[in-house]
Amino acid sequence: MRVEIVAVGTELLLGQIADTNSAWLGEQLALGGVDSHFHQAVGDNLDRIVLALRTALARSDGVVVCGGLGPTHDDITRDAIAEVMNVALVRDPVIVEKIGQMFSSRGRAMPESNGRQADVPIGATPIIQVMGTAPGLVCPVGHKVVYALPGVPYEMSEMFTRGVLPDLHRRMAARGEDVSVIVSRVVRTWGNSESGLAEVLAPRIAALDAAGGNPTIAFLASGMEGIKVRITAKAADTAAAEALLRAEEEQVTALVGEAVFGFDDDTMESVVGAALKKRHLSLGLAESLTGGLVASRLVAIPGASDWFRGSVVSYASGVKHDVLGVPDGPVVTAEAARAMAEGARRVLGADVGLALTGVAGPDEQEGRTPGTVFVGLARAGAETESLEAHLPGDRDRVRQYATISALDLLRRRLVHDGHV
Amino acid sequence: MRVEIVAVGTELLLGQIADTNSAWLGEQLALGGVDSHFHQAVGDNLDRIVLALRTALARSDGVVVCGGLGPTHDDITRDAIAEVMNVALVRDPVIVEKIGQMFSSRGRAMPESNGRQADVPIGATPIIQVMGTAPGLVCPVGHKVVYALPGVPYEMSEMFTRGVLPDLHRRMAARGEDVSVIVSRVVRTWGNSESGLAEVLAPRIAALDAAGGNPTIAFLASGMEGIKVRITAKAADTAAAEALLRAEEEQVTALVGEAVFGFDDDTMESVVGAALKKRHLSLGLAESLTGGLVASRLVAIPGASDWFRGSVVSYASGVKHDVLGVPDGPVVTAEAARAMAEGARRVLGADVGLALTGVAGPDEQEGRTPGTVFVGLARAGAETESLEAHLPGDRDRVRQYATISALDLLRRRLVHDGHV
Repeated sequence: MRVEIVAVGTELLLGQIADTNSAWLGEQLALGGVDSHFHQAVGDNLDRIVLALRTALARSDGVVVCGGLGPTHDDITRDAIAEVMNVALVRDPVIVEKIGQMFSSRGRAMPESNGRQADVPIGATPIIQVMGTAPGLVCPVGHKVVYALPGVPYEMSEMFTRGVLPDLHRRMAARGEDVSVIVSRVVRTWGNSESGLAEVLAPRIAALDAAGGNPTIAFLASGMEGIKVRITAKAADTAAAEALLRAEEEQVTALVGEAVFGFDDDTMESVVGAALKKRHLSLGLAESLTGGLVASRLVAIPGASDWFRGSVVSYASGVKHDVLGVPDGPVVTAEAARAMAEGARRVLGADVGLALTGVAGPDEQEGRTPGTVFVGLARAGAETESLEAHLPGDRDRVRQYATISALDLLRRRLVHDGHV
Repeated sequence: MRVEIVAVGTELLLGQIADTNSAWLGEQLALGGVDSHFHQAVGDNLDRIVLALRTALARSDGVVVCGGLGPTHDDITRDAIAEVMNVALVRDPVIVEKIGQMFSSRGRAMPESNGRQADVPIGATPIIQVMGTAPGLVCPVGHKVVYALPGVPYEMSEMFTRGVLPDLHRRMAARGEDVSVIVSRVVRTWGNSESGLAEVLAPRIAALDAAGGNPTIAFLASGMEGIKVRITAKAADTAAAEALLRAEEEQVTALVGEAVFGFDDDTMESVVGAALKKRHLSLGLAESLTGGLVASRLVAIPGASDWFRGSVVSYASGVKHDVLGVPDGPVVTAEAARAMAEGARRVLGADVGLALTGVAGPDEQEGRTPGTVFVGLARAGAETESLEAHLPGDRDRVRQYATISALDLLRRRLVHDGHV
């Protein structure tokens, strides 16, 4: 079954907002085993929405139209669908009642204009709202179908998952089409290059291809988020797809080894924070080239105050010497990184000190090329150590890679080498 | 003249990347006075690209198709256009030569596959590349036109501005259509709410509306970027449009006053940095709730090392007391902010100390509600001062607003109250 996405809103045509709804819907349709060959965007104009819907129905089996279900006079998706269905709109008293209750629960009277949101084309079935006021619609057009969803992203996504995808799967089953469930998992990694990962996983990918290409493995380099390995598995039901996914995840994790730092929504910061918390350790930073970036990422994690003490952002060399006690001399060195880490630990009263110094660019510094970074790590009961890295990219990219590289050194010491 | 945008790429349909090209093109067409009523996205499939182009030509006067001009077998936009034009593709030796030179200048031989990028539908005119290898195409189809642009954003935007928009304006003039030039400027502000700005500018907006709605004024709240006031002016030529814009900019600036911190690409950080540099002053920070965010924004400005000393990120209260010398007691207070600012100035050896303390949320702290923020400012020859703010939003938004609020206090003292 081929489904086309139609996004409604003049602000999309004018580029005032990016159409993230269509991207999300496209991904969900693909994961749900539904083909989608075309997307359209159209403004808040009745004739043009009708034309976009008719165009979509001419070349696809179904349409998901998104936006234009609000209460204002600009919100005319309902009217356009009624015209395409060649039926009248009838106000549904149950929906009026429900919208009225939503307003009265907030101590307000329902504005007259919200009544429009209860208008349903004859023959269509509403999808009840659970998060806002605008209900969705399932609208049969001959043997095809138009689904209408609100444009507010969290309302749209909830309603698609609950009311649209199951209906699509029912229709596909009725047409005798293979309804597959597609599930995916992202293995989060740092420490191998993309080509290095590809090399490690090449035999596994070749074996999967030879066996029919299910599951599949794909790579995505994402700056400070690391390199993601996405595993996608397809099967007749969720249990079978999840089983395929788990088995493949074990294979990938075994091949990639310590470079795997987490899965799906895990981040390097959240993993490091959880490891510190579990071990009752506090962290202090000394940041030069990253200028507070590492600290700002860490405090974005809820509960960071349980384990994060703070950071000395020592952008000027004088601050490294005077505050952190780095010996006079060059500051883009392994020795300086170690002294900064020990200084951070001492000054901030932390169990662990982590430091970064280096050259973000575009100019050289102390004869070092842009991208040269030294990370220092100081902790009780172990010698203070350092790591030298040569990172690619512009100023911003070097900072991003330096941030994840430094946190990754700490992660490996915490998670893989026993307690620090 | 109505122009439709067609974006080509299976990755767009799958939601793997967001279609930022169409948003940018939509905005540029609108600013160029060209109507655009529909956008489409389509995958890398010949029949479907042909269908998307024919659909677009049926309902618009011109088409900008973006993507699919690369050298691989997936890049088939040229073939689709040739089919729509009903002509053959012919390899252009001048383009082959040019692509070959680009490779040889990098010491490489041109791969055979890049020859495809020199294929031109008979009757089409190439738009020479200046940044990459793929030329663009201007393709007449009857009395309509298809423009093909590469999908790489910086190649696409350069080629659109140089090769597409002027051609569109020529065609509009030949059709006897009013070719207006539209120019716009963004006035960057902080310190007034969106509704406060609207109130201040209401009489001016009403006067513009009454006089025909040219120029227009619009608002956009952009978190840490402040509240933007966009002025858009339309006229028969650039000089006239710029004159309208300048006159309106003066009116808006006079009404909004000190809340105006810059124009277009100015940021609060760049404005504060330039003001410090001009006055030969150095800055040191003490950050609690923002956790290094202010510092990381400042070091993103090239040349920040001329005036930025560093930051003490004092996330734990102990660091405020021990490192910055904040007296024992509560730390979310105006007194603590002032002591932090003085501590930052002293510890970091800076001319100016700027400090932030507050509650990012979601929980209360010291009986203060989330969004409560105190900014401290310490400098030579003036009493240390503080500012109390109550900022809306979640943890991330509170941090963003706190960052721009603190920098704005410093900006006003530097720019409007004479040298600090």
